[in-house]
Amino acid sequence: MTDVVSVDPRTGAAVETVARETTAAGTAALCATAAEAAPGLEALGRSGRADLLDTLADALQAHRDEVVAVADRETALGPARLNGELTRTCYQLRLFGEVLREGSYLEATIDHAADTPMGPRPDLRRMLVPIGPVAVFGASNFPLAFSVPGGDTVSALAAGSPVVVKAHESHPATSALCALILAGAATKAGAPEGTVGIVYGRAAGVALVTDSAIRAVGFTGSLGGGQALMDAIASRPDPIPFFGELAGLNPVVVTPAAAAERGAAIGAELAGSFTLGGGQFCTKPGVTLVPTGPDGDALVAAAADAVRGSAAPVLLNGGIAASYAEIAARLSALPSVGVVASGAEPGGDGFGGAPLLLTAPAGAVPDGLDQECFGPLGVILRYDDRTDLLAALAGLPSSLTATVQRGTGETELPAAVVRALRDRAGRILFDAYPTGVAVSWAQHHGGPWPSTNTQHTSVGASAIRRFLRPVTWQNAPAELLPAELTDDRAAIPRRVDGVLVTGA
Amino acid sequence: MTDVVSVDPRTGAAVETVARETTAAGTAALCATAAEAAPGLEALGRSGRADLLDTLADALQAHRDEVVAVADRETALGPARLNGELTRTCYQLRLFGEVLREGSYLEATIDHAADTPMGPRPDLRRMLVPIGPVAVFGASNFPLAFSVPGGDTVSALAAGSPVVVKAHESHPATSALCALILAGAATKAGAPEGTVGIVYGRAAGVALVTDSAIRAVGFTGSLGGGQALMDAIASRPDPIPFFGELAGLNPVVVTPAAAAERGAAIGAELAGSFTLGGGQFCTKPGVTLVPTGPDGDALVAAAADAVRGSAAPVLLNGGIAASYAEIAARLSALPSVGVVASGAEPGGDGFGGAPLLLTAPAGAVPDGLDQECFGPLGVILRYDDRTDLLAALAGLPSSLTATVQRGTGETELPAAVVRALRDRAGRILFDAYPTGVAVSWAQHHGGPWPSTNTQHTSVGASAIRRFLRPVTWQNAPAELLPAELTDDRAAIPRRVDGVLVTGA
Repeated sequence: MTDVVSVDPRTGAAVETVARETTAAGTAALCATAAEAAPGLEALGRSGRADLLDTLADALQAHRDEVVAVADRETALGPARLNGELTRTCYQLRLFGEVLREGSYLEATIDHAADTPMGPRPDLRRMLVPIGPVAVFGASNFPLAFSVPGGDTVSALAAGSPVVVKAHESHPATSALCALILAGAATKAGAPEGTVGIVYGRAAGVALVTDSAIRAVGFTGSLGGGQALMDAIASRPDPIPFFGELAGLNPVVVTPAAAAERGAAIGAELAGSFTLGGGQFCTKPGVTLVPTGPDGDALVAAAADAVRGSAAPVLLNGGIAASYAEIAARLSALPSVGVVASGAEPGGDGFGGAPLLLTAPAGAVPDGLDQECFGPLGVILRYDDRTDLLAALAGLPSSLTATVQRGTGETELPAAVVRALRDRAGRILFDAYPTGVAVSWAQHHGGPWPSTNTQHTSVGASAIRRFLRPVTWQNAPAELLPAELTDDRAAIPRRVDGVLVTGA
Repeated sequence: MTDVVSVDPRTGAAVETVARETTAAGTAALCATAAEAAPGLEALGRSGRADLLDTLADALQAHRDEVVAVADRETALGPARLNGELTRTCYQLRLFGEVLREGSYLEATIDHAADTPMGPRPDLRRMLVPIGPVAVFGASNFPLAFSVPGGDTVSALAAGSPVVVKAHESHPATSALCALILAGAATKAGAPEGTVGIVYGRAAGVALVTDSAIRAVGFTGSLGGGQALMDAIASRPDPIPFFGELAGLNPVVVTPAAAAERGAAIGAELAGSFTLGGGQFCTKPGVTLVPTGPDGDALVAAAADAVRGSAAPVLLNGGIAASYAEIAARLSALPSVGVVASGAEPGGDGFGGAPLLLTAPAGAVPDGLDQECFGPLGVILRYDDRTDLLAALAGLPSSLTATVQRGTGETELPAAVVRALRDRAGRILFDAYPTGVAVSWAQHHGGPWPSTNTQHTSVGASAIRRFLRPVTWQNAPAELLPAELTDDRAAIPRRVDGVLVTGA
């Protein structure tokens, strides 16, 4: 059995052995326990699970200093960012408690027996039920909000589906600590054993998604990692839904009016956005389209100044650092690419990466420049006119986000940009930067391939729907119906005979 | 180029050449036209598309006699069934018109900018938008309701997504006629050219799902056919969502109390259900669990009588007839299987199949007996007691439906059966038969693999969601928002700052 080791990215040194890689038998046992936990977790009901989520949030809050310290030592993301991430994680737990208490998410629908043009229709009642145990694969770059206590785990538990998490190799100690906190708090809240489990190692990850007890997979990570899991799932006798959040290029368009009004400010803000968190966000603005001419030049100059003044961030792990160095060198050497600025070179033995700003003409984007790159790399594509801009946008892959920086009151060109990008992005921003992803009812974090492989989101209230499935009861006696579908229960929003009725 | 020929299943004879198989270039051109049609179809708006669906229903109604005659000649399903199916198809078109006018399906959600525990939150507004052109693969057994003018086509058009249908080999003339009627009516209703297209031939089907313009696939058919399309989609540079309705065994449980009360009636009704439409329904009750002892014997005897009195139905095509003959012979020869009764042998050159009733002990179900079989075959599994029953249920694959026939007022055993089957069926029926699938808001037609490959439905109002995708607008100026997301527009149900508000 192989040891699972926690590495300090600031030094590159192994700091502690966290666990052994989980064996096939160990994974199977955890999945079986999760399956046994499912009826009890569902039986807690909406109110009981809302209380459970609050208890989990309280427990994370109570261990805040310890969690942030371990996560910082493993990720080098810094206490400020990690404290914010823990706050976000707790907020997300409580938001899903609200979602449960409100109850719309069940999509409770009642069609009483009736005569129709097709003849008599039986009594039909539909709502969503838990899908069953869910495997969660967290991301390297959010050790809390997209990892063990992250959006996938929270939305699955809210749905009533137990969770088995595959710990990310990049932060196993944080994963182990969070799993311990969550499992302990879940027990305290009356949830069954097996509500939250954790496995370690890549082999265990494959065993997890092919275990017959697992009914869905939530994944945040690379296209390659996601593809490997999708292939494993396709080999099951009963393939299960896979919800992957995979990649994002996240184009930003700066209109000529915006560049004229505030080019220098945009340049500095843009550099701040693509170097934030070491440039390791799935929402990092990977390419920015900037007009040629003096206003655009001022923007580029300001971004270059910001990059030149930047320290080399510590990247999350050796793999990301090596990949970043390779990509940065390869793209810098492309014939039509200009190296505008670079930041400080990393020193020491840790996993650093120098910030870098590249540019190329929008009319001739070389292969590779339009791919997601994890790390503090920004690319500015210069366009001559509207035609040039729209042609360049048409050549970009789909993304999680698309952003327009527009002039005051400007609508015509922004509308054309939105027409060009709406079908290829999950979130459209105006005069903002995509790196912040607020947790709220109206948020959507997704987009066509390669952003995600489904229409579904891993952020926002509708994330819960991924871990539920519809069931319709036909001619059911009242005593065999779920409480939310009986005639006398109207405390939640329901659609009754076609009419949406809000709760009491 | 190969001819596409319409065959009469009553005689096995080729009757007419309908078309040539669509070439790769022809398929690409149709997909390109569909992509060009997308903005115009969306621009019709909810009201315009609701009117479009009504116009399509009117057109099918106006051509009722012609459509039914062609479909009957190609499928031998009979005018009564096909008239009913056309009525259902028109009803479904009008129901989706209601869905559009009501507007909840957009999931319009507004979170105004606000302070949160995570800091200031930007203005976020989310709704669903059309996914883009959809490929539809109809089923052999519903030449109207699950084919060219069927649920996939209707829900995609309602969503605002143009459709390219792959004509089913088993009813190409019906497909061609329906496509002509729909395309003509769509033009009349002001929809753009390319709103509805059709291709012929298996190669064209593969070309369709791999065309870059196609953004999702709706499929009703066999597990093998679905798997081939899923493999083709996985080979795309940008895999797209596939919504398959694939297979169903649809167990029926008869409790001892139900057998005692009305065993003979259930036996006769059951035979009626599994021979209905030649046993070619995805909701056919494939296995029925019946208690051992005299009450169960009476049920089996009544079912046997009904089967012995049955004529051999004409099956849909030569492939189904050959497969049915092979399966019937193979299962009849299994060691623990008893042949209880068989109906009349088919005569002549058409694609007939003799009705057949098999039985086996529930405690030792041989391999193969628990697989879906298209054709008039019923299987009765005899159980000794509750333990025997629940063990047998645990061994069955997931299904579209699960049915309980219970005694008057009986709840304890039915509840145990529902607990055993709810996680493995999309619809749970009481004292009914699964072969009827009403179209309504609360209907769900789905279930875990092998019933479907996703949680989504192809029948009922929520079918539209498959062909939509969420987009969130962040900090958007009002003039760049869709009308349904502006502050002053409250004609549809929306969630505003977390609170569900019904339309005016």
